[in-house]
Amino acid sequence: MATVVSLDQIRAASDRARPYVLRTPLIPIEGAQLKLECLQPTGSFKVRGFFAAALALPPDRLRRGLITVSAGNAAQACAYVAKRLGVSCRVFMYDTAPATKSEGVKRLGGKVIGMPRDELLEWMTTEKWRDEPETFIHGFADRELMAGHGGIGLELLEDVPDLERVVVPVGGGGLVSGVASALKGLRPGIEVIGVQSDGYPLWNRVFESGGPVSIKPQTIADGTTAPFDARMFDLIKECVDRWLTVPEPRLRAAIPELASAAKVVAEGAGALAYAGLDQLSPGPRTVAVVSGGNIDTALLADLLS
Amino acid sequence: MATVVSLDQIRAASDRARPYVLRTPLIPIEGAQLKLECLQPTGSFKVRGFFAAALALPPDRLRRGLITVSAGNAAQACAYVAKRLGVSCRVFMYDTAPATKSEGVKRLGGKVIGMPRDELLEWMTTEKWRDEPETFIHGFADRELMAGHGGIGLELLEDVPDLERVVVPVGGGGLVSGVASALKGLRPGIEVIGVQSDGYPLWNRVFESGGPVSIKPQTIADGTTAPFDARMFDLIKECVDRWLTVPEPRLRAAIPELASAAKVVAEGAGALAYAGLDQLSPGPRTVAVVSGGNIDTALLADLLS
Repeated sequence: MATVVSLDQIRAASDRARPYVLRTPLIPIEGAQLKLECLQPTGSFKVRGFFAAALALPPDRLRRGLITVSAGNAAQACAYVAKRLGVSCRVFMYDTAPATKSEGVKRLGGKVIGMPRDELLEWMTTEKWRDEPETFIHGFADRELMAGHGGIGLELLEDVPDLERVVVPVGGGGLVSGVASALKGLRPGIEVIGVQSDGYPLWNRVFESGGPVSIKPQTIADGTTAPFDARMFDLIKECVDRWLTVPEPRLRAAIPELASAAKVVAEGAGALAYAGLDQLSPGPRTVAVVSGGNIDTALLADLLS
Repeated sequence: MATVVSLDQIRAASDRARPYVLRTPLIPIEGAQLKLECLQPTGSFKVRGFFAAALALPPDRLRRGLITVSAGNAAQACAYVAKRLGVSCRVFMYDTAPATKSEGVKRLGGKVIGMPRDELLEWMTTEKWRDEPETFIHGFADRELMAGHGGIGLELLEDVPDLERVVVPVGGGGLVSGVASALKGLRPGIEVIGVQSDGYPLWNRVFESGGPVSIKPQTIADGTTAPFDARMFDLIKECVDRWLTVPEPRLRAAIPELASAAKVVAEGAGALAYAGLDQLSPGPRTVAVVSGGNIDTALLADLLS
């Protein structure tokens, strides 16, 4: 059974990533604070984990270059990390990924291989990446990567000593596992709340049914549309104390609200935790993680209109 | 003759404001870093100065409440500061101020008095605020307020030890005077570059002609459309080492660029320094100040489309 990532591993991973990532600010809004991971290089928290994982590789494996598979943000983070560390990068992406994400990979010198969703899931399930010359880093299930994301939890405890509640969007589960592992290791009383859209409530359904679930995504939170992965079941179950489901119309409204009230650009997944705040009783000291900001300009314009 | 604000005054002002304002992050972009003052409470740097100025008042003057006159951001900052300090607030604004700014004041419990631009300038010139019961804080020419803005300069020197160039939007001149005073006091070799739009190039014209100038604003940088103020002439002349004028179409393009590349919402004035970067030779370690993010949602949607 998977257990939470150890504090020692999180501290070491965060130390490796620290010179390359932003210590993101917290900004107050009505009733909560927002942790602005959308301000990270490449516009999402994923750089924390990819730096931590890449810098944990033996030098000869790092030199072979990096390869990953991604809904978009892991792809950009992997390309950025590879560029900063001077190695090559290829990423397999859904051919439906937003242009802002695939273009971002190419601008960073990464090579994009687009595939239909079903074909890509098959490629993953059969571990075809073993046939590739580069070193594969999994976009959410890699332990060193999750440890790197755990740096968010360490920063939260430094910045908000009386923290009581953390709200985190859940896709593959790498972010929530990293953050929750850090919090549960240091302050187990803090409630970790996982959020998904009702357009892709994968983990809610998984824990209701007790086993694998497959859903067709119908959400602007494309960053949370990873398929069920059995390796994450126990870990996510242990990490998430409570689940929220955000109706898709509420999520669409949350993006212009964040632009107006907080002056930040959030993508669908990035706005999920904020969008869920109105389902919580007021009172406890709460942080919502704004995980990313890679939204297509046309969609952002549409949501603002 | 006006001289730069002293370091002692800047340090004291920043200390007073610190518990209430954000230590804003720097984020890297191609060739420069952005200082994100748009993330401050009320969405602009102005809270730094208003807290510094209000907290410098004798208690009996503070208790009378605050009054200011503003193109918008100073109004919101004044209302926010008054609310946090438990006193009343009224603001005189152009009746053309963006709704996002006047609504912001009202949400904070401030009272808005809208006036046509000419009437409001007359009200200012004749110092009509002396007839009002509240204590007046000038939105850019107050020395304690400028000292508060100087906190940005102190933070820049802490965060970027090899800083060589700072690019700042210029409206009334309070921001650039505060920032430049801090830099010139500590590291006089750093170049301070002032930026205006070609839709309101007031200070360029002033220094070309050597005296007062009046221009009708035709810019989305509404935050920089303060009229000529003779008190600021010597100070701005001493503070700004070089001027840039940004063509209005370039400024309009800069706002979606900032949303896409940096995940931040900037208003016209807030995007000016970033928009001017392409006029500078690459090389020197450069910071551009993103001064504010209070842009009307409809305009933002239009610029993104």
